[in-house]
Amino acid sequence: MTESLEALTARHAPTHEAAIQAVNSRKNWSPFRDSPSAKFHPSGAPEVGKAAFEALLGRPFDLEQPGITGQSGKEVSPFTRKPLNIEYPVSDPAALISAAQEAMEDWRKLAYETRIALCLEIAQRLYARNFEMAHSVMHVAGQSYTQAFSGSGPNALDRGIEALAYAAKAMRDVLPTVRWDRTFGKEDVSLDKLYTIVPRGIGLVICCASFPTWNAYPAMFASLATGNPVIVKPHPIAILPMAIVVQECRKTLSEYGCDPNLVTLAIDTLDAPVAQRFIDDPAVQIIDFTGSPRYGGHLERTVTGKLLFTETAGINSVVLESCADLDATAMATARATCLFSAQMCTSPQNVYVPAGGIDTADGHKSFEEVASALVAAIDNIADNPSVAAGIMGAVQAGPSCDLVRRIEERAAQNPGAKILRRPAPYPHPDYPDARTMTPLVVALTVGNAALYAEEHFGPVMFVIAAPDGDAAVAEATALARQHGAISSYLYSTDEAFIDRSLDAYETSGMNLSINLHGAMWANFAAAYSDYHVTGLNPAGNACLADLAFVAGRFRIVQHRRPAVKEAESHAA
Amino acid sequence: MTESLEALTARHAPTHEAAIQAVNSRKNWSPFRDSPSAKFHPSGAPEVGKAAFEALLGRPFDLEQPGITGQSGKEVSPFTRKPLNIEYPVSDPAALISAAQEAMEDWRKLAYETRIALCLEIAQRLYARNFEMAHSVMHVAGQSYTQAFSGSGPNALDRGIEALAYAAKAMRDVLPTVRWDRTFGKEDVSLDKLYTIVPRGIGLVICCASFPTWNAYPAMFASLATGNPVIVKPHPIAILPMAIVVQECRKTLSEYGCDPNLVTLAIDTLDAPVAQRFIDDPAVQIIDFTGSPRYGGHLERTVTGKLLFTETAGINSVVLESCADLDATAMATARATCLFSAQMCTSPQNVYVPAGGIDTADGHKSFEEVASALVAAIDNIADNPSVAAGIMGAVQAGPSCDLVRRIEERAAQNPGAKILRRPAPYPHPDYPDARTMTPLVVALTVGNAALYAEEHFGPVMFVIAAPDGDAAVAEATALARQHGAISSYLYSTDEAFIDRSLDAYETSGMNLSINLHGAMWANFAAAYSDYHVTGLNPAGNACLADLAFVAGRFRIVQHRRPAVKEAESHAA
Repeated sequence: MTESLEALTARHAPTHEAAIQAVNSRKNWSPFRDSPSAKFHPSGAPEVGKAAFEALLGRPFDLEQPGITGQSGKEVSPFTRKPLNIEYPVSDPAALISAAQEAMEDWRKLAYETRIALCLEIAQRLYARNFEMAHSVMHVAGQSYTQAFSGSGPNALDRGIEALAYAAKAMRDVLPTVRWDRTFGKEDVSLDKLYTIVPRGIGLVICCASFPTWNAYPAMFASLATGNPVIVKPHPIAILPMAIVVQECRKTLSEYGCDPNLVTLAIDTLDAPVAQRFIDDPAVQIIDFTGSPRYGGHLERTVTGKLLFTETAGINSVVLESCADLDATAMATARATCLFSAQMCTSPQNVYVPAGGIDTADGHKSFEEVASALVAAIDNIADNPSVAAGIMGAVQAGPSCDLVRRIEERAAQNPGAKILRRPAPYPHPDYPDARTMTPLVVALTVGNAALYAEEHFGPVMFVIAAPDGDAAVAEATALARQHGAISSYLYSTDEAFIDRSLDAYETSGMNLSINLHGAMWANFAAAYSDYHVTGLNPAGNACLADLAFVAGRFRIVQHRRPAVKEAESHAA
Repeated sequence: MTESLEALTARHAPTHEAAIQAVNSRKNWSPFRDSPSAKFHPSGAPEVGKAAFEALLGRPFDLEQPGITGQSGKEVSPFTRKPLNIEYPVSDPAALISAAQEAMEDWRKLAYETRIALCLEIAQRLYARNFEMAHSVMHVAGQSYTQAFSGSGPNALDRGIEALAYAAKAMRDVLPTVRWDRTFGKEDVSLDKLYTIVPRGIGLVICCASFPTWNAYPAMFASLATGNPVIVKPHPIAILPMAIVVQECRKTLSEYGCDPNLVTLAIDTLDAPVAQRFIDDPAVQIIDFTGSPRYGGHLERTVTGKLLFTETAGINSVVLESCADLDATAMATARATCLFSAQMCTSPQNVYVPAGGIDTADGHKSFEEVASALVAAIDNIADNPSVAAGIMGAVQAGPSCDLVRRIEERAAQNPGAKILRRPAPYPHPDYPDARTMTPLVVALTVGNAALYAEEHFGPVMFVIAAPDGDAAVAEATALARQHGAISSYLYSTDEAFIDRSLDAYETSGMNLSINLHGAMWANFAAAYSDYHVTGLNPAGNACLADLAFVAGRFRIVQHRRPAVKEAESHAA
């Protein structure tokens, strides 16, 4: 017998309340374990998950949905370089839209607590499939196994549950009813007012190729919780993770008697993209986009009369003004750049170091010494294939490698540039055919901004000689205002310097990590605690998560009428 | 000696908390009295206010602000038909923008509680000038004295204070700091995180001609509270009320040591509008627009990458399916249409009555009897000049009268239309030259939608014969989805009919008043309790007020760093 919606809602209420408490306190919390270590999971779970992934390969993906007109799927694993040969159903956009509109009719009338509980149930089931998900993310995106397990699993689900907490807070702010009394002249007026939460319309979720689930969960859950259906449009080279998500959503919704067409999958190809078809449809009222600055910028310049949330990319910087322990700082920076071969929206690209060197607890270090420390820290990772495999994973797409090679050529021809470290594949211990590339490191004198004043999507680090720390902050923040920045890093032992730098970071909308070393990755963003993207620079307009991320996804409609007097009410 | 900002903040804190309590409870509350009756106000206040208004006439308006390049002002009183001859300073837009940007630097660093207290102080001072404001609104907009006093005074200030309450709720949701602890592997990581509220940028407030203050206060206060400077662009035929507001803002801000350029006035003329210059400026990040559907629609179709809040207009409807007391229902409807000569965004225009008549407690009434009751109720107001003066006031602009005359001509030529009441001036008891016009009433058979399927800005009521109540609701809600609606009215004694109608009103984003009669105007919208505009139909996208109205006006920027350990902290 299927659990009732009431029982489901009651079962998930404690998790939901804990999530609200977490975003209010901003303290560490998660209902999940983000390590793939077998000791945290049911016996055999890793093996079962791997087998489940392998069973998906080479056959049509099991997804029934409206208006199927064909099959498509051209994913290639960055690890094996072999096609996955999974075929996904392609649906007529008009069929998905009308099915979503129909599904919304009942969905909007459910109590929002029930909608939230259904999202939490989906999250829990996806967590139960997370070993399968980890392999799926690996073989479309190129993330390492551990990163795919944590970053595309619990860490991403946490961002979704965080969005549910914000959605609940925004909807709780709307009182359902009030008895309103006021005297007008000599007449006492008493009205009963009812306030109804009405969803805005279909939410389109456009996912990026390299990290599809992380932004998709908050967008999907925020829209679903507030009563909107969702159409998921994955990147054509990274469909599988989102196909699994949509499959699990539809299965869960059906099981609890809800219309599965609340969540559907819109498949396209690189040659025939379909996103704009949905964007232009009047029924689509919410667009969540994660992806390239080029298409994101196009949306930001053209979408009107709809809610648009974007996260694209920017030029993330490190300003290394001084530090206590150069090796520790170099290692933290190298790890942040090496993680997933710098294919993350939080990866640092430009490292500013004063041309005259920096002070450390071990004395003054020249620019060259600092640059050497950075290269050595990267080599430490790159030269050990099993470490490299765990941190760098694979490069998702060939063009990223080509791009790094072109930068290498430009640097070789530039008298102001010096190549400190050449990019090269590392041998992956498990996948000899993996597309891998360790970072290019280029040292630059001042005045070579043409090379580094844009985001390069691939493993490249520029070590830029700045006149001093203040000039470094000035340039890093100016570039962020112009091109965006998501995560920024500052190292200094000079509190006065840190203090006077904060204002520029703030007004440039740059979330900043100061003097971070050690076990936590400097570019780790914790759900429930770290706000991700400020919306104040071109790297995106959507913050994960705040009230602005959810408050416009629903509207309030009221009606009011003379209050039924006590006597009448009892008589009725 | 000037009061300190701390003292000011403490003094206004109880009012602010009461406002938050009011929006949370949605019960009746106001710090003000909205009646001009002398007994509620300091002795002599009405006379002092009138004299203050008269002293403004025929001379340059006292407003120093940056970049003044000339003077302008062509207001004409709808009551006297004489020019006010007040000249306002015209400023170079670039000067206003750069002054606003400069002013934002310190403003954003003030505690938001202080910014809110300064807004409350401004509200209180504007309330103290409200007799002067009432005469000013009368003589640019044409509102009656009592309406100008209440609707453009306390009722409008209340909407501003309501927006402050929402701004505070959204900003309180952002914790200033947290100590965050988590174990990574074997390492205990402890971080101090700081979350800073950063304003988005200059807010442009474009005011309408007929009711300038009502939407301006919430927009101005929402932007100011969240740290943004404001440029106020009044309609060129109704500058004076907003000039007074800007003058009072600048005076108050200066007095408390803040930069007065946080609030400036942008004057233009009908021939040389200036709004687009500001809208296109990258420094302007928030646009609050109230006015015509034409320009509002243009903004909704063209503004990208900025926050845009609009309230335009729609086709407000009454569906009269049945009622207990026909005379009371006719009176409520007539009063709503007559109020300010139907120049309000809440004025009903289309009254649907079943062609076969309606049931009342006094038996069945034919369509013709219902229409006659409506005309009689209007006549009751129109035929008594002192009543008409108090309710209808004047028609702000000649084109509104021309429009009604053109509809009268079209109706006369239409075999499906019957003119039940001709529009005519009423003699204003105090202003013999006042531009007045009592409503045109036209009865229409089905199939004459061309006449009533658009908003006509002026005193006109269509009484439309519908097949039945359900068909009436279907058409009224369909027109709202297509053309917008802000306030809608339903009269019925059939609870089953009401129940099955609610869904269509909800999904059409129509705020609905059911069976309202008596002392409270059916189109009265109470701040803190009645949500105004849903954002779900073309009548506007901005709700006064909800979290969505404020949450995007600021962004959150964080920084984080290793926590200072207890021992170090004590040593420091």
